[in-house]
This record gives sequence, C-alpha cells and structure tokens, in this order.
Amino acid sequence: MSANELRKDYLLNRRVVIAVERRRRPTDFVKKVREEKAGVCPFCPGNEHMTPAAMLVYVPFNGGIRRDKDQNGFRHKNWLIRCIPNLYPAFTPIGKKKQVRVKDSPDFVKAVGHHEVIVESPRHDEHPSVAQIPQLVHVVNAYLDRLEELSAKAYVKYVSIFRNHGLEAGASLSHAHTQVITTPFVPRIIGEELGASRRYWMKNDQCAFCEILTREKAGPRFIWENGSFVAFAPWASVHPFEFWVFPKTHKSTLENVSRKEIEDLAVALKVCLGGLRSLLNDPPYNFGFHIAPNKKDSNHYHWHLEVYPKLTVWAGFEKSTGVFINLVPPEDAAENLREAVQKEEKGL
Amino acid sequence: MSANELRKDYLLNRRVVIAVERRRRPTDFVKKVREEKAGVCPFCPGNEHMTPAAMLVYVPFNGGIRRDKDQNGFRHKNWLIRCIPNLYPAFTPIGKKKQVRVKDSPDFVKAVGHHEVIVESPRHDEHPSVAQIPQLVHVVNAYLDRLEELSAKAYVKYVSIFRNHGLEAGASLSHAHTQVITTPFVPRIIGEELGASRRYWMKNDQCAFCEILTREKAGPRFIWENGSFVAFAPWASVHPFEFWVFPKTHKSTLENVSRKEIEDLAVALKVCLGGLRSLLNDPPYNFGFHIAPNKKDSNHYHWHLEVYPKLTVWAGFEKSTGVFINLVPPEDAAENLREAVQKEEKGL
Repeated sequence: MSANELRKDYLLNRRVVIAVERRRRPTDFVKKVREEKAGVCPFCPGNEHMTPAAMLVYVPFNGGIRRDKDQNGFRHKNWLIRCIPNLYPAFTPIGKKKQVRVKDSPDFVKAVGHHEVIVESPRHDEHPSVAQIPQLVHVVNAYLDRLEELSAKAYVKYVSIFRNHGLEAGASLSHAHTQVITTPFVPRIIGEELGASRRYWMKNDQCAFCEILTREKAGPRFIWENGSFVAFAPWASVHPFEFWVFPKTHKSTLENVSRKEIEDLAVALKVCLGGLRSLLNDPPYNFGFHIAPNKKDSNHYHWHLEVYPKLTVWAGFEKSTGVFINLVPPEDAAENLREAVQKEEKGL
Repeated sequence: MSANELRKDYLLNRRVVIAVERRRRPTDFVKKVREEKAGVCPFCPGNEHMTPAAMLVYVPFNGGIRRDKDQNGFRHKNWLIRCIPNLYPAFTPIGKKKQVRVKDSPDFVKAVGHHEVIVESPRHDEHPSVAQIPQLVHVVNAYLDRLEELSAKAYVKYVSIFRNHGLEAGASLSHAHTQVITTPFVPRIIGEELGASRRYWMKNDQCAFCEILTREKAGPRFIWENGSFVAFAPWASVHPFEFWVFPKTHKSTLENVSRKEIEDLAVALKVCLGGLRSLLNDPPYNFGFHIAPNKKDSNHYHWHLEVYPKLTVWAGFEKSTGVFINLVPPEDAAENLREAVQKEEKGL
C-alpha cells in the first residue's frame, strides 16, 4: 500500500481510513513499563465475601466439575469458575414496579437487564493468553451456561459477552475475568449486521459471513486456523492489530456448539490472544462476541468474536463523525500476528 | 434519578445507559498530576520551518488583520493564526492519477481530501478556555475561511472541524490548535442526523433541533446562553460532562454567520470550555462541529458544536455493541457546569 485507503466494513456503514502515511510498526506500540494497582483482589479465592453471592460456580467433582451456586449465606471456596453479579451494574434485573415511560422525553426506558462477571480462574493472572486449555474450556462452558440462562428471559433481547484486559482498556480489576451484559433491545452494531446480512441472504441465498470467511482464509489478512475456527484481520479494521475469530461451521449463535468446537475455541483464544500478547508485550485489549439474538436470524447470521487491541485513542474526528483512522494496515497486522500466533501454537 | 436509565439520542440510533448506581462526581475525575511532553514545539513562532508552508496566515495589519500565505520558500513569522497541512494526513489531496477501484474488495476508494491544522495562537498555551476574545474571534474566522475554501471543492463532501485537547484525548502536540479533515463522503453520524432531521421536518414542518433547543433551554440540562448561543448537556449524553452549543438562529451550516454570531461564538467557546477546565482541572476533551454539507439540507438541519470530555474509557461492551454507559447523569453535569460557566462569564 502506497496511499491511504478508505475502506468500508463488509456489512456496516462504518468507514476506516487505512493511513499508511503515518503507518506504525508493532514496536511503536510496545509499552516498556506497566503499572499495577495494589490492594486486595476481590476475585481471588478467600475473598468471596467481598463480592455478591455467586449464581454459578464450577467446583471440582469426581475428576470433572460440578455446577453449583452460593446460597443461604454460604460461599463456595474451592471454585474453578465463579459467576457473580457486577457490584456496579449498568443494567439491573426487572423489579416489582412496572416499567415507566416518562413524558417529555424522546425515548426513555429503565435499563433493565443483567450485568455479571465471570471470574475465569482462581489464579489471579490466568488470562486466556497464558491459561491452561482445560481451564479455558471451563471458561467457554461458563459463557454458554450464562448465555443459555439469560437469553431465556423474556425481557432480555441481547446477551453481550465481552472482556476488558488492562487498565487502558477499561479493566479496573486485573484478575482474569469476562463480563456479561444483557440489554432490553438489540444493540446498534448487532442490529446493523443482522439487517445487512439478512438483505444479503435474501438477494444471494448465501450467508455473507460464510463468503467473507472463504475470501479471507485465502488472502493476505489470514492469521490462523484450526479444525473449527479461522482468525483473520478484517478488511476495514478499525483498530491496529484487530482480529476476528469465526467458526467454520455456519451457526448464528454460541448455543448448540459441539464439545469439539468448545475445545477448539479454547485453543483459538489461547493462541490468538497469546500471539497478541507476545507481539505487543501484553497490550490492553477488548473483545466481544457477536451472536444472533433470535432463531429467525439463523440462516443469515454467523456468530463470531471480535478482538480490539487498545493501542490508540479515538479523538475528535472519530467521535464526532463515526469515521475511523487506523495507522496499521490489516495486511501488516495479519502478517505480524500470523507469525506470533504460529509460535504460540508450537508452544502448546 | 434513583435507577439506571436507558436513553436514546434525539435523532441517532444511539443508546446510552445513564448509570446512577455507579454515579460519579466531578472530583472523581480530577487528575492531580499532568505530564507534559518536553521538546521543541513545531507550532511555536520561530519554528515555522518545521512544518509545511502555510496556506493561510493572519498577520497584523493597520490595527486589524490581513490574510496571506507562505510561498516561494518564504515563511511568515509575525502571524496571529497559521493554517498548515497536517504532516501525517489521514486524507490527501486528489492527485494526477485517476481514482482506482480495486477488484476483490467490498468497497475501496482512495482517502482523497484534506487534513489541516489551524494553529490558534502564537502563544503556546492560548487554549480557548483562557484565550483573549479577539484572538478567539480570529480562530472562528479561520474556521470559516477554511470551511469556505474546502467545501467549494467538488470531491469534498464534508468538512469536519474538530479539536483534541490533552494527550489522553489524542492531542500529540499541546500547542493550541484545531484540525480540519475533509471526507469524500458524508460521515455516518452526520448522515444519520441529516436523515432523521429530514424525516422530522417532512412530518412536522419544523426543525427538530429548534424544538430540542426550546425544550432544553427551559429544562434541567440547560447550562448557559448568550445573545446567539445556548449550551446544554444533551439528554442522552454519551460522555460524562458532555455539552452541545447551539446557535439560536436556525442555520444549517457555519457559512453566512454574522459578525455578532462570530463574536458570541468566541465568548461561548471561552466561557464553556473555561467552565469545563475549572470544574475538572483542565481535563482532556474533544470537540467537533456538526454542519450540513449541502444547501438542500438547510431547512431541516441546524449546525452545532459537540464537546466530549475524555474522562472514561470505552471498553468491550461499547466497542462491540455501539451502546454506551455514562456514569454522570447529564442533569448533574449541567448543574455543575452551569455554576462553573457562570463564574467564567463573571471573570470576562
């Protein structure tokens, strides 16, 4: 690439300038010093009283795990996974009072829903990039458990499973954890993807994402694959070193994935996030699962995971226009990540 | 407010959770220490050779100012305002080669356009919050000059005028400056506002923004007004302490504003940004002008300025869903800003 390019997302009305004139290399983003907040970790074993009671714990049982919960004041101590309500929820469960609609407001509704934390390991630093695969299989299973329970509620229209890693990416606690938020509406970005992929399907009788996958698997933005998953840097990457992980089998949501897919996803998380970690010295990042909220979208939607390294700042232009500037061409990002992820895989 | 609220923007399909359960006060955002990058400032007088030649300078002349430019190797030294190309442009002027469309890409176009810097003052620290009003009048006039010249070009579909203040808000140089980027398309957020306000106008024969202004002027989110402008915290503020500045007279763009409006905008910038500065100890922020790109939108669009303090981080939930969580109810923000801005006005 010799000139800046303006790219539009596969489906979204989202444009990105791939700005080669100020192109950056991985080393430009590597921070030498990392600060760490001191203090007692409320997610570490022994501190269970510092958080609300768990609605789900995995505890060792007969060489496998048993699902249970904290109740009647009792708190499990020997857990492998611990799911708890967020102490400061953005969305809160429906109460006894009826929802109110306030006059004199363009659009008002109570933020009804759930906001939970999945503590991924009793070991403070067992982040996916360095975790043991069996532990990551527990993590993925916990995602599925929470998704299944929460999406069954009538007032839940979407379940967002996301992870913030590092202070700069919004993680106020450094203990390995994922968050789950349910919304009483379909979020904008998911809604736009659903609409565009539905239109594509009506016109072409094909899943747009399946076609994207076929194209990207064979191209310069390919990063890695295993039996069930493909990782690639998306064409119109918004963030430097952004990558997406797609299941090879067309499925619209995480429910009903096979045991093989769960294990393969655990491996994908480990090697892809491990590659990102080794390439950029454990950078802050966010990830979010994108899933179809309804069965009616099962033909045209294809669930996936999007990973956004947090290496730059969105400033006045991005925030006031919704247009993004990315200093790393996704082809460069993929080349660097490909090598780093392959090394991680060899280390398994 | 006793429970979290879910609010939708006046016009955009943009939702925000006003999260009172983790509500923050102004003092929670005040940073005690500010770092400052050392080194030579390329925007300071005497260092004009460190930047490209200016396409516009204001120089003192007969007690007023004269417009000129650098040419034939000559660089003006005694400027009051200096407009230069950005050394690392996101968008670049149209070249001799024809635009190419690459096959095998969903949507590709060269990032054709302009990316400029308006150096707001020869004095390094003369940011709007502390500037002299006559200097701020020059700044506003420079916005108008660049807007007029750039928007006349056939390949320019939108002119974004925005400001990044502070390292955390993306300002890599601390000398007072604004940036201008032109895009060969109408940006998403502007396009959505245009569409929604057009629909409102067709239905109600009224400018949606004029109605918003009437309502907000009389309500709990009002902050400040002078003869020509009103500042308020928007109903569905995305950012803590976000505020918008609207002209009282319906106009779709900044062109054709009167001398009185220019002076009143200079005052609005000074007292509103001054209030923000004093309330939160000179926080990082971004601002962006929203204007209609075409005359055909003059009935229904209403130009304005949006100011986004940079006090929190958008994390995995925001980035993967397009839904936002704001820890400061705009009513609280307005109450605090109202007092702070009034103090600034008294100090004029």
